[in-house]
Amino acid sequence: MTTPLPTTFVAGDEGSWIIERIASVSGAALPPAARLDVREGLLGPSGAWVLRGVAGHPRYVQRAEQDALGRIQPPLGRAEATRAALIPIRKSAAWWALAQDERRAILEERSHHIAEGLKYLPAIARRLYQSRELGEPFDFLTWFEYAPEHAEAFEELVLLLRSTEEWTYVEREVDVRLVK
Amino acid sequence: MTTPLPTTFVAGDEGSWIIERIASVSGAALPPAARLDVREGLLGPSGAWVLRGVAGHPRYVQRAEQDALGRIQPPLGRAEATRAALIPIRKSAAWWALAQDERRAILEERSHHIAEGLKYLPAIARRLYQSRELGEPFDFLTWFEYAPEHAEAFEELVLLLRSTEEWTYVEREVDVRLVK
Repeated sequence: MTTPLPTTFVAGDEGSWIIERIASVSGAALPPAARLDVREGLLGPSGAWVLRGVAGHPRYVQRAEQDALGRIQPPLGRAEATRAALIPIRKSAAWWALAQDERRAILEERSHHIAEGLKYLPAIARRLYQSRELGEPFDFLTWFEYAPEHAEAFEELVLLLRSTEEWTYVEREVDVRLVK
Repeated sequence: MTTPLPTTFVAGDEGSWIIERIASVSGAALPPAARLDVREGLLGPSGAWVLRGVAGHPRYVQRAEQDALGRIQPPLGRAEATRAALIPIRKSAAWWALAQDERRAILEERSHHIAEGLKYLPAIARRLYQSRELGEPFDFLTWFEYAPEHAEAFEELVLLLRSTEEWTYVEREVDVRLVK
């Protein structure tokens, strides 16, 4: 995705996604709500809560990885992908004080974030939204869509990422699970 | 700078910087105005034009470079730095389609953007604001402050950067010169 895509996740009484559960992984959770609406644009407050982010160019992916991802990653909105997860994440000041090469080394060379994620494609469709420089409470909004038969694989991926060195820099993480 | 600093540059009749000239380098220029006010926060339209950006963590700088910059880079707002330049830049879709390692190779290994910039420190204070994912007309707002005796060095730095491979990806650039 090279053209920025501004997006607002609106939790409330509307939207095509039913919120199954909202759980805190680290730090404060988010208030309960019945449904989630994914809208284009950076919109103002409404409903129970809103989270805003912009999908854009990748920050760490190298050419060979980008090509591998391009060959295999599925689009969002597949009919069979009736499960989703919205996992907003904030990293610590220590993470943001690292230089680019140090962040890359932790994220990929030592935590294998990109390589491990590739193994779960095309089952699990993903999109990353940047939020930090919008003044949002989270740095990233991670979004995943998958079919019910891949629910177990998704849990495996999430547990794997949370066990990495990269995740020692995560200071707030909320796990919002959704069904269509 | 690891905590994001949202900033709005307001061109109009107010502000401590007098606009000396506004010149297009590539693409459309910006409308004329008398003064420039640099305000904290992402503010709405006012005056002749506004440009908004967020200073944040560096995107390409590696640890050794970050340490070298940290040792030598001066703060903004020095009393003797009565000249400034605001140079907003937009890069092409081809730039944003590149992977991180390709962008780094062009920016530093082949264009020496960071190493050349270091040579002009501490004379020329700089700050980079990210604008692309705010939906702004430019991708970056670059800001420079220097004393009158370093005006020639500043022209040299600007010409040097504009002659690099990196600059072949610049599709819009406006040069706004200011005095206090």
